[in-house]
Amino acid sequence: MSEQEKIVTACLIIIGNEILSGRTQDANLGFLGRRLNEEGVRLAEVRVLPDSMEVLVPAVQEVSRRFDYVFTTGGIGPTHDDITVDCIAAAFEVPVIEHPEARRILEEYYGDGLTPARLRMARAPSGASLVPNPVSGAPGLRIENVYIFAGVPRIMQAQFDAIAHELSGGAPLLSESIAVSLPESVVAGGLAEIQLQHGNVEIGSYPFQKGGRFGTTLVVRSVDGQALRAASEDIVALVTALGGDLDSSVA
Amino acid sequence: MSEQEKIVTACLIIIGNEILSGRTQDANLGFLGRRLNEEGVRLAEVRVLPDSMEVLVPAVQEVSRRFDYVFTTGGIGPTHDDITVDCIAAAFEVPVIEHPEARRILEEYYGDGLTPARLRMARAPSGASLVPNPVSGAPGLRIENVYIFAGVPRIMQAQFDAIAHELSGGAPLLSESIAVSLPESVVAGGLAEIQLQHGNVEIGSYPFQKGGRFGTTLVVRSVDGQALRAASEDIVALVTALGGDLDSSVA
Repeated sequence: MSEQEKIVTACLIIIGNEILSGRTQDANLGFLGRRLNEEGVRLAEVRVLPDSMEVLVPAVQEVSRRFDYVFTTGGIGPTHDDITVDCIAAAFEVPVIEHPEARRILEEYYGDGLTPARLRMARAPSGASLVPNPVSGAPGLRIENVYIFAGVPRIMQAQFDAIAHELSGGAPLLSESIAVSLPESVVAGGLAEIQLQHGNVEIGSYPFQKGGRFGTTLVVRSVDGQALRAASEDIVALVTALGGDLDSSVA
Repeated sequence: MSEQEKIVTACLIIIGNEILSGRTQDANLGFLGRRLNEEGVRLAEVRVLPDSMEVLVPAVQEVSRRFDYVFTTGGIGPTHDDITVDCIAAAFEVPVIEHPEARRILEEYYGDGLTPARLRMARAPSGASLVPNPVSGAPGLRIENVYIFAGVPRIMQAQFDAIAHELSGGAPLLSESIAVSLPESVVAGGLAEIQLQHGNVEIGSYPFQKGGRFGTTLVVRSVDGQALRAASEDIVALVTALGGDLDSSVA
């Protein structure tokens, strides 16, 4: 694997009891997985963790060492249960300060409505830089390789778009999806052989059911476009030999 | 906190590159979070991990020590990328065997259609017991405190329902949601005080936007029903004093 093909990795930490309790469905993982890949960064792990300093501090310390980038979502609002800034400051062993530029942004955004609660959103780990929030004022933060984003998807997405150019990605992972009208177990044997023959692609197999019939979506992934095409061609040949159809109606 | 109120915890490991890449949205977290709570078990952490033995083995070892129960979803089908059984066997340092009862179930379910690929689904870590799969034959597994479930939500849910009675839960976490017509920052100060006064409840604050107006859902959680009601009453009094409405149209 050449220098240019090194894999750059990221970890997402989704912070919030409301996700763990099943009350709220996370909507950030999918967006981040797709957008990171476009930037050549592989989302390699996601953790959903409670609003607990005891849990968050060691987790942030661990993943910020293991991955090139860490993103957190949630826990940065004006209420007592918003403890992300405190946890990340503790993880990097720096104090929490009031960030002067964040305060200025909040003053401009809220005017006379800048209550003490809202001013909490100017708090930052010492040494952090700001991530613009074009949606609702209160900025995100970056310290070392950790980006602190809002949990609200619209805000989080705007924050990601604002910093995407900062990321140093590797080669983006290319992928091709092939939906076939055969159950997984029928393609399994041939597929395992194709995987063995194409070491530099990763072949995933995902069953689906549609109108009472079982089918399989085969996803081929690689940083090497030529290798991707070669493996995909072998898969199409396998499916045809097995009497299956390529079901182009399933993306 | 009395003996009966000890907190029983669980960790969910969602296995699959397709979730990390953003191709597929997980639909098991919410179900498991809600159902575990009904059984008195707190979903305390979720990890989404790739189809990689190198990653999964140490993760399973870590979380099976840290939590009372571990659930895995995904990676138990008939194809080469289904490596969950191998990873969990390796985590517990036991061999993978063909489970005789699992084989019998597959023989009955598939009849003459039991291909070598499908027979892979009879593989189990040595010492594992079976979890019934009323939907599609291939059983789930349990070894020590780890339950191995399918990734397909309908199957996973049936498997959970089949084993729910085995779980030894603590007191279920009760909760009350109060939707108010005030932005988070307006309730923040009073809410922090209420949280301080009610140490045995956990108050979460979740902003929402509806028809262009900002509101907040306040969620009070406790294993103690009386404490829950007392805190909820204080919150209702706070909202009323601040001139807010209780928005009963938001669950």
